[in-house]
Amino acid sequence: MNKFWSSMVKRTDPYVPGEQLNEPDLLKLNTNENPYPPSPKVFEAIQKETENLKLYPSPTADDLRTEIASHFNLAGKENIFIGNGSDEVLAFSFMAFFEPSEAIRFPAVTYSFYPVYAKIFDIPYVETELNEDFSIKPEALFNAQGGVIFPNPNAPTSIYLPLQSVQEVLKNNPDKVVIVDEAYIDFAGESAATLISEYDNLLVIQTTSKSRSLAGLRVGYALGQKHLIDALIRIKDSFNSYTIDRLALAGALASFRDKAYFKEHTAKIIATREKTAEQLHALGFSVIPSSANFLFAKHESKKAEEIYLSLKERNVLVRHFGKQPIDNYLRITVGTDAEMDRLIDTLKKII
Amino acid sequence: MNKFWSSMVKRTDPYVPGEQLNEPDLLKLNTNENPYPPSPKVFEAIQKETENLKLYPSPTADDLRTEIASHFNLAGKENIFIGNGSDEVLAFSFMAFFEPSEAIRFPAVTYSFYPVYAKIFDIPYVETELNEDFSIKPEALFNAQGGVIFPNPNAPTSIYLPLQSVQEVLKNNPDKVVIVDEAYIDFAGESAATLISEYDNLLVIQTTSKSRSLAGLRVGYALGQKHLIDALIRIKDSFNSYTIDRLALAGALASFRDKAYFKEHTAKIIATREKTAEQLHALGFSVIPSSANFLFAKHESKKAEEIYLSLKERNVLVRHFGKQPIDNYLRITVGTDAEMDRLIDTLKKII
Repeated sequence: MNKFWSSMVKRTDPYVPGEQLNEPDLLKLNTNENPYPPSPKVFEAIQKETENLKLYPSPTADDLRTEIASHFNLAGKENIFIGNGSDEVLAFSFMAFFEPSEAIRFPAVTYSFYPVYAKIFDIPYVETELNEDFSIKPEALFNAQGGVIFPNPNAPTSIYLPLQSVQEVLKNNPDKVVIVDEAYIDFAGESAATLISEYDNLLVIQTTSKSRSLAGLRVGYALGQKHLIDALIRIKDSFNSYTIDRLALAGALASFRDKAYFKEHTAKIIATREKTAEQLHALGFSVIPSSANFLFAKHESKKAEEIYLSLKERNVLVRHFGKQPIDNYLRITVGTDAEMDRLIDTLKKII
Repeated sequence: MNKFWSSMVKRTDPYVPGEQLNEPDLLKLNTNENPYPPSPKVFEAIQKETENLKLYPSPTADDLRTEIASHFNLAGKENIFIGNGSDEVLAFSFMAFFEPSEAIRFPAVTYSFYPVYAKIFDIPYVETELNEDFSIKPEALFNAQGGVIFPNPNAPTSIYLPLQSVQEVLKNNPDKVVIVDEAYIDFAGESAATLISEYDNLLVIQTTSKSRSLAGLRVGYALGQKHLIDALIRIKDSFNSYTIDRLALAGALASFRDKAYFKEHTAKIIATREKTAEQLHALGFSVIPSSANFLFAKHESKKAEEIYLSLKERNVLVRHFGKQPIDNYLRITVGTDAEMDRLIDTLKKII
């Protein structure tokens, strides 16, 4: 360790994102990107906005917040916070709602960035046990000392927790914020956003990176009652006045306005997911029923790590987490039908 | 205060950015934006990169870091950190190098975001006195308990501190990080980047928002020895893996590659600045000799606040800070020659 490093740097345990290889002809199924480009309206909007690059973007992102509020039938922009990807929104939320002295709770198998945030901000945490089928056990999240966070659908299990169970978690943590991280919700069931007027402790976080094909643009957002959004704004305005650039604001706005494109392409991915799950099953995989744009699967005889490495040799990249109890599973992003055909063909050669 | 807010939210005192009015025909001289568009190469690069929006950007920004390292004759990307605007780089630096138990030092008149960062991260600070001419007093920054930060040129005074004095500050804080915030350096003298190999405690922060006309794109960077850059990377990777989107990375890279455009437009602004300073002087202003893309001036008889309001009525927006000892000064961004003519004409009507 270095004498110039703060105690904060010293206690960090940084997140490692999925590999970003640049091989030609690589089939990249490891970071849950969308195989389809964003709406053509996004390109037009960005093109137009390049005229204004010399000027600062809106520090308050009012237009985009108003559009998103209307998309979710919320009262207005006071219910929406915009951040530089949902990862930044998550970081700000850890800062705004969790406390160094009070242990938060999240499931033992979950998005691996949560413990990273907890470490940098010195927030103690309890990893709660899952059911045997890897589904979240709501009652393990009750009465948290410092607050609760979980993805819905959960990552990397792909399992959706019904809103009735989400409500039980909310009701059993009346004085603490419950963050529902809905990065994959558009491939699943109903969003907890419908519960916002009822629960003053609910913060829903979503992203444009997956269902809106804008991973390259970095726009995430939080939905909640005004008093929670105000806290996030205070954090942001003490950190960086302009977190979202002009092109990202314009592109995200255009994406929300093109509702038909969004619906069509989300439905396509869901259809491909279901077909691929069946094909994987036929190859001897057990596949957890997925509510996301990825499949979480293990093979009846071949080890996940071996399959991961054999696929990588053949230029197909999926994600393998080398930790218990999921070390024998692969997380496979759902691509186009043609991409999934290539995956299945490659798997046939391996298995 | 709200029961859901963390102690961190409660202690914040958020920054207020310059007004962003949307009046037609507004002459906006209040946030030090560049009056010229970025290089045409920036538009080409962005246009090309929109093809890849569905994919995450590079989490390590290697290409841009390598280009910037070469621009500053530094060894390589290990000397460069990229952030979402220099404000984010500053925030990460407060997290990486300053400590809640140790008071840092910065000048009493300076960038008003520094106390905001100090408050959110609970870092005590000492505001050090300036010389009578508003120049920074280096010896007041010696032997800081927790570290030092100052802009060079200073904001909003526009005064450049010679590198010899910067070196004295570095030598007299051998065990603490000294951050030199060079947002306006391209309109001034030599950058402290030339001192990096000599001082293991020096971090230089710059931005593409001013001299590169990319305020709308949000790209800032830090220059320093590897051990300091490593600390910033650890913070970033515990906060948000992908802080810079694809279009911003591509645009900033193109800007650094077009050296001729950069030189030409920076020289233009400096020429306009000198001409405008003389014109203001002829109108009864005393103008601090500026090394930035703005002028800091007070009038011999009319109060700054009155001038600010009269200009605003006439659709000319400049910045007025209502605090001692600078409450009788105006900060005026240097625009094009035509924009400065409009400013001077409007001032003639007022004074």
